[in-house]
Formats: sequence, structure tokens, C-alpha cells
Amino acid sequence: MKERIGFIGLGIMGRGMADNLMRAGFDITVWNRTAERMTPFVERGATAAASPKAVAEASDIIITCVSDTPDVEAVLLGAAGVIHGAAAGALVIDMSTINPVNTVDIARQLNAKGIAMLDAPISGGSEGAEKGTLSIMIGGDAADVARALPALEAMGSTITHVGEQGAGQTVKLSNQILCVVNMLAASEALLFAQAGGVDLDKMLSAVTGGAAGSWMLANRGPQVINDYWAPGFSIDLQQKDLRLVLGAADKMGVPVIATALCFNLYRSLQARGMGGDGNHSIIKALEAMAGIEARA
Amino acid sequence: MKERIGFIGLGIMGRGMADNLMRAGFDITVWNRTAERMTPFVERGATAAASPKAVAEASDIIITCVSDTPDVEAVLLGAAGVIHGAAAGALVIDMSTINPVNTVDIARQLNAKGIAMLDAPISGGSEGAEKGTLSIMIGGDAADVARALPALEAMGSTITHVGEQGAGQTVKLSNQILCVVNMLAASEALLFAQAGGVDLDKMLSAVTGGAAGSWMLANRGPQVINDYWAPGFSIDLQQKDLRLVLGAADKMGVPVIATALCFNLYRSLQARGMGGDGNHSIIKALEAMAGIEARA
Repeated sequence: MKERIGFIGLGIMGRGMADNLMRAGFDITVWNRTAERMTPFVERGATAAASPKAVAEASDIIITCVSDTPDVEAVLLGAAGVIHGAAAGALVIDMSTINPVNTVDIARQLNAKGIAMLDAPISGGSEGAEKGTLSIMIGGDAADVARALPALEAMGSTITHVGEQGAGQTVKLSNQILCVVNMLAASEALLFAQAGGVDLDKMLSAVTGGAAGSWMLANRGPQVINDYWAPGFSIDLQQKDLRLVLGAADKMGVPVIATALCFNLYRSLQARGMGGDGNHSIIKALEAMAGIEARA
Repeated sequence: MKERIGFIGLGIMGRGMADNLMRAGFDITVWNRTAERMTPFVERGATAAASPKAVAEASDIIITCVSDTPDVEAVLLGAAGVIHGAAAGALVIDMSTINPVNTVDIARQLNAKGIAMLDAPISGGSEGAEKGTLSIMIGGDAADVARALPALEAMGSTITHVGEQGAGQTVKLSNQILCVVNMLAASEALLFAQAGGVDLDKMLSAVTGGAAGSWMLANRGPQVINDYWAPGFSIDLQQKDLRLVLGAADKMGVPVIATALCFNLYRSLQARGMGGDGNHSIIKALEAMAGIEARA
């Protein structure tokens, strides 16, 4: 028999993920801070709970997918939190991206009540959430990972157990370092080629398949060329993750100098009211430095 | 009948390229500053010439693959240079990586004597040169590109006509921007994950296939993990190319801030005598900043 799933957080990512769990035949109980987001799920047979605690009372596995570290702490450890409703033997899977240090602390508190926890942050954007093709990076015990797998397989296609509790968050933040710095690389290369008078489509076709290639160049490069700035992942969300990177890097003594550069460039775009644009807009911060007329 | 090919510059790249031209059935006349490097080619039926001028006298198409802008100027325009030996109607293909501005000036001087010129710099390393799988980025006239194609196809597998004279060099330098900044991204991500206690092989398998992926991460990441520092492309050669990028970017008014960061990090490794190591060693400059014990 399938385990009963609780799902907390029906935002831009959680919506698609909860959908895919229902499609895979799981009975789900949902909770969301903004209550009306639960309605479409209830109409399709899900149960709406009155609190995270109530979700936990009705579930064997409780999945959280909320915005930031304080949100995860509130829904798991707060007065109406999961920790007060979950039975010993329950499994919490936090799929939010939060601070790896806090993750380990949260897990310790849940474990003390007999509640298992995995950190399982995701990559792949809202498209990946909808299509069930997310990358999921998991930290925690192997037995808990095995238990979580049927649910995770409904939501993701690349599921990697990367280490102990907290390791999923650490790998997710490494992923974010790569995304933003690779996008900065693409931006500098595109601006350089453009200033040299080169057709940018030809430039992309010449270099994308070789040692210079990256997912960002191949997928966001054409969007830059075509002045398409809608977010796959917004600058505001990117900055939330980069703050986690910079904070953790500071604690660990790791120099993330290009990542810090990206953070500051994104900051300048936020100051200009562009926080809702896609993270590939970072090229506009370079253009502003150069006095190049802003893209559309 | 195949055109007679002259090949100037039998270095780490030129050697493999000239080999592949011979394998494809071209008669080649060679010249190299260090004369003994011509011997193995002569033993296999190539003709050794006494000067670049003599190469040009014996050839329809003259290919140059030398180190830097002054070397190209010397072999093409110097006292014993190609310009004094080439017949009107000859075609020069410069496959070196040099300054795009000087390229256009050299082409102008050759064109004035009825000699056509393409800039066709390459990417793919010595392995690509040996296997005939180079990426070749070509600037110049379409008719000249068509004429060059049989020879280029013996040496490369991705051959892209990217624009007018100089455009090949501009795209090659864009390629170098991407390579070094993507490698810096990989370095920061690997150091961050390592400091967080994550197994780096698992980290790579979790993120390489997604939005964080790049050729550098997939190919040089495992070498970093395995303490393998032999050059696919050495820091010293990388620095030569980055000087071209920084000079051209300065002239064009393009901010290449992450690229400049890479240049300075590589500079610190050169100062420590590591200029012959592979360009993926850039992680060691970050480690030195952090006081992390140097990798083997």
C-alpha cells in the first residue's frame, strides 16, 4: 500500500510536484499559507488540512517545499508545526533550498522525536516541476532515501543520494554557483562577440558544442540574443539562494569570488526593479557598466 | 587535383594538423622555426622549405599555426615571409589565435598583393588536433571558405564560417572567455561542496546533467577530483589568449570582469611556477586564498 503523503507549500514549484504525486496515485493532504491555492487540489480529491501539524497527523511522509530557511523552520518546528503532529516513524522530506547548517539542526530536532528527515532540494525550474523531470539532490540515511524513492520518482528524473543530512542542500548551493557563474561567462562572451561585430547566432553555433559549452550558454544564450527575459528562474529567487551560498561560504572559509560578483551584479538589477526577470538578465548589469544601451 | 598545401608551425597543435593533411592525401611543404621538428614529416614524404617565403613559392594554400600575433606577422609579412613568395591567387589560412585587430590589418596587406586570407583559429586541444576533431571558427569571404574546406575538413569536425575577416579570432576569444570562467565556476562549486563535506563524485553526478552543467565541469571536474593536472591546455597558453581578450575588450569597452579575475588567478599560479599545468589548476589559486592545503 502506498504511504500517505502530506504536501506543504503549493507555490510555483510545489504545485507541479503535488500534481505529479496525485497523478502517480498517491493520496495527499495539502497545506498552503495562502489557503485558496489548495482549492484546485481539493477539487481533484486531495484533503486540505488546517495546519502543518494537521498535515502531519494525516500522513506517513510529509514533504515541504517553501521559500526560505525561516519558512521551513516555521512549518516544521513552529507552534502548529509538523513536529507536533507527526507520529514516531514518520519521514519528513524538505525539498526547499535552505541553509545547510540549519537543515542539520532541524533534522536533529525531528530525529529526537523519532521523525526521520531528508533534505532533498530540487533543480529544474517550474517546467521540471510540471513535467516531473526535476533533479533531486538528497542528504540523509540510505534507508530513508529508499523509503522516499517512490514519491521522489513521481516528481524527478535525476535522483541522487549525495551524502548525509545537509549534503543535499550543499550540493544544491554548488549547483547555484555553477548556474550563475556559467551565465556570467556566457554574458561576457556574448558581449565581447557582439562588440567585435560577430553574428551571435553563428558564435553560439561555433562554440556551444565544444570545451566552451554549458547548459546556460545553450539554453539562455538564444534567449539573450532574442531579448527574451521571462524567468526560468527569477533574479529575486536567485539572490535568496546566493545569500545562502555567501553565508555558508563565509562560515566555511571558501572564496567564492565569481559568485559574489554575480550577487552584486544581480543586486544592481534588483535596484533597477528587475528582480522578477530571469537570471540570464545578468548581461544587462554588464551592459550598464559599459554604457551599452539597455536591451529591450 | 588537390591544391598544394604549405604548413608553417609544427608545434603541439600544428604537428597533428599537418599529419592529418598528409593522411588525407595532400602534398605538403613545411617550415618550422626549430628545424628538427620537420624531420618526421620529411621522412613521410613532405618537403621541408628554407623559409616561409619558400613555403609560399611551393604552395597554393598556406596554413600558419604559430604562437602569437608577432609570430604570425613575422612568418607572413617579415623579410622571408609568405607575402614575398605567394603568387597572386594564393590563399593564406591563419589558424593561430591572435589579436582580431591585427588579423584584419594583416589580411589587408595580403589582399593588396592579390593573396586571399582567412582567420581560422581552432579549439579542441592537442587531442583534437591529433584526431582531426578540432572546432574551426572562420572569418573571411565565403568563396575562400569554400576553397579552404577540403583542407579544413581533414583537420576539424566542427567548421563554422562566423563572419568577415577577424570574426574567427573574435569568436575564438569568446570561446576562451567561456572556458576559463566556466572552469572558475566549477572550481568554486567543487571547493564549496568539499568544504561542506560532500563526496565530489556524487556532487558531479547530481549536477552535471542539468542547468549547472558545462563541458569544463564534466571533463575537468573529474581531473580536479583525481589530482590530475597535466595540461589539455596550459596556463601559459591560456594567459596568452586572455591577454588578447583583455586588450581587445579594453579597446571595445566591454567589461569582462570574471575573465579578468581568471587572468589574475592564473597569474598567481604562474608566479608559483605552475604555468605548464593545465588550465583547470585555477582551483589551486582559490585554495591558496583560503589557506587550504595545496592539492598534489
